[in-house]
Amino acid sequence: MFNGKHVLITGGLGFLGSNLAHRLVAEGAHVLLVDSLIPEYGGNLFNIDGLDGAVRVNISDVRDEHSMRYLVQGQDYLFNLAGQTSHMDSMQDPFADLDINCRAQLSILEACRKYNPSIKVVFASTRQIYGKPDYLPVDEQHLLRPVDVNGINKMAGEWYHILYNNVYNIRACALRLTNTYGPRMRIRDARQTFLGIWIRLLVEDRPFEIWGGDQLRDFTYVDDAVDALLIAALRDEANGQVFNLGGDPIVSLRELADLLVAANGGKGTYTIRTFPPDRKRIDIGDYYSDDGRIRQMLGWQPQVGLHEGLERTLVFYHTHKAHYVEPTT
Amino acid sequence: MFNGKHVLITGGLGFLGSNLAHRLVAEGAHVLLVDSLIPEYGGNLFNIDGLDGAVRVNISDVRDEHSMRYLVQGQDYLFNLAGQTSHMDSMQDPFADLDINCRAQLSILEACRKYNPSIKVVFASTRQIYGKPDYLPVDEQHLLRPVDVNGINKMAGEWYHILYNNVYNIRACALRLTNTYGPRMRIRDARQTFLGIWIRLLVEDRPFEIWGGDQLRDFTYVDDAVDALLIAALRDEANGQVFNLGGDPIVSLRELADLLVAANGGKGTYTIRTFPPDRKRIDIGDYYSDDGRIRQMLGWQPQVGLHEGLERTLVFYHTHKAHYVEPTT
Repeated sequence: MFNGKHVLITGGLGFLGSNLAHRLVAEGAHVLLVDSLIPEYGGNLFNIDGLDGAVRVNISDVRDEHSMRYLVQGQDYLFNLAGQTSHMDSMQDPFADLDINCRAQLSILEACRKYNPSIKVVFASTRQIYGKPDYLPVDEQHLLRPVDVNGINKMAGEWYHILYNNVYNIRACALRLTNTYGPRMRIRDARQTFLGIWIRLLVEDRPFEIWGGDQLRDFTYVDDAVDALLIAALRDEANGQVFNLGGDPIVSLRELADLLVAANGGKGTYTIRTFPPDRKRIDIGDYYSDDGRIRQMLGWQPQVGLHEGLERTLVFYHTHKAHYVEPTT
Repeated sequence: MFNGKHVLITGGLGFLGSNLAHRLVAEGAHVLLVDSLIPEYGGNLFNIDGLDGAVRVNISDVRDEHSMRYLVQGQDYLFNLAGQTSHMDSMQDPFADLDINCRAQLSILEACRKYNPSIKVVFASTRQIYGKPDYLPVDEQHLLRPVDVNGINKMAGEWYHILYNNVYNIRACALRLTNTYGPRMRIRDARQTFLGIWIRLLVEDRPFEIWGGDQLRDFTYVDDAVDALLIAALRDEANGQVFNLGGDPIVSLRELADLLVAANGGKGTYTIRTFPPDRKRIDIGDYYSDDGRIRQMLGWQPQVGLHEGLERTLVFYHTHKAHYVEPTT
């Protein structure tokens, strides 16, 4: 379905973007990846190892409105995945977060409106914008009450997409991702997800740390998230809509840690510590999503169970650890 | 209660800000007004006619983070009312709207956090962020689904305030204003509210125009809105909260037009035209708010009925028309 199509992926060297690129190349698409390769973010050139010559890479920042204006032209699909995702960074420099997650999104959409209004855009949003849930599982009718600057800006960025769909007919939709994991995620530190640093420490044979432990979460394996992105791109019923992603089973962080150690052949240890006070204030407690809407409306169905997903992830990092732990260029 | 207190009002020469200033001066506060006097916005020096010497005026733009950093210092209260409010402007220049309604709000809050963390902030939000209602009356549990760039940015701006309250203990709350009207509103054009241009045409003895006519709306007289701002500033229960404002009775635009003509001594005519297509797309249909939350939690109660409020408004503009229709300096 994507054979011969022109596809632009912002954040294309990142976790989600690069996994999507691998799939789209296999389907015969002409793929253009845009990434800033800012060292603190998720971009990593090794993520497209094996795709040499099959994708084009353009190093630029989504805040660079001139490059984006040019790059959106001639594209059939835009997977708009670039973003600042760190809670801490957004609190320390709220203006950088604003520029990436709000201003750049507006300028990308303006570029589409002016230079490529027939493009279809799929935006990667996040469950973070819900904040602390009133009820579980959280569906799309739940109020948005973000608990950090990042969440507020992502909320606005998501709504620009819906607005440009509704007002200008720039077909766009948003997926609110929950904890997504798998090969090619950032594991150098906890900037992208706590699971990253757990995996790093595990493959380095060091104990990892759980904060709290009883919090319930849901997880999506990256291939399933890629499925959702592709379905959302293809289906016109998705236009103007937002969809939660989720995954089974729902587990506590402690159960997740045990599953991770089991998936590592039983090797690995962890310690449990109490939640640091500065995080406690924005702790959202339990979260898991109701993803019934995308299942029913678009027929999405996650395929990879948590145990299998963790195993695949660990195999990847045992093999390619060096590319994810040491600085890459 | 405000006697001797230091109060900063952004947008202080505008409609709401100047009415608030008149009240605060009467209560003995030291009032500092910040306004950019951008001609397209609501600021008008005549709005503080009669307050000469009783308020300080600082002409600067909330986007000027250096001046704001200085001006918040030493203040007990900040009424943060400056904003870009025009739908059309926000669509034509989404970046200017972003800078005023998001970036400047962040920088004001950062200034409070760093230089005056004990300040209390009351933010003027808007019912526009709800978009097209799912149900009526709209309470604070209603999802936010803004229908223009302005609504999205105001939504983010509101949430920065709630966030800084929750995370940094910068006491802050937000009032979601509905149609506010009264003396000192902008009537030169429809940039601030459709009611502005109706009043201008009426006092100029010219017919005004209703788009549609059946849409239901609620209205708050400006003195009642000022009451709400003051109560929200004084009451700690308000911290971290958002409150709808509303007003009785709920009327259709056609009924409002008839009330306005009646309040004008029966003089005035209007024509009804169909909604222009470019506005129809973002038409929200009927809107009126459930303001029970602020009534119950803070004891707010509007005092001025619609007929009386319209009469007072018309008396003001018949007298002072020249200061609101001709360019002012």
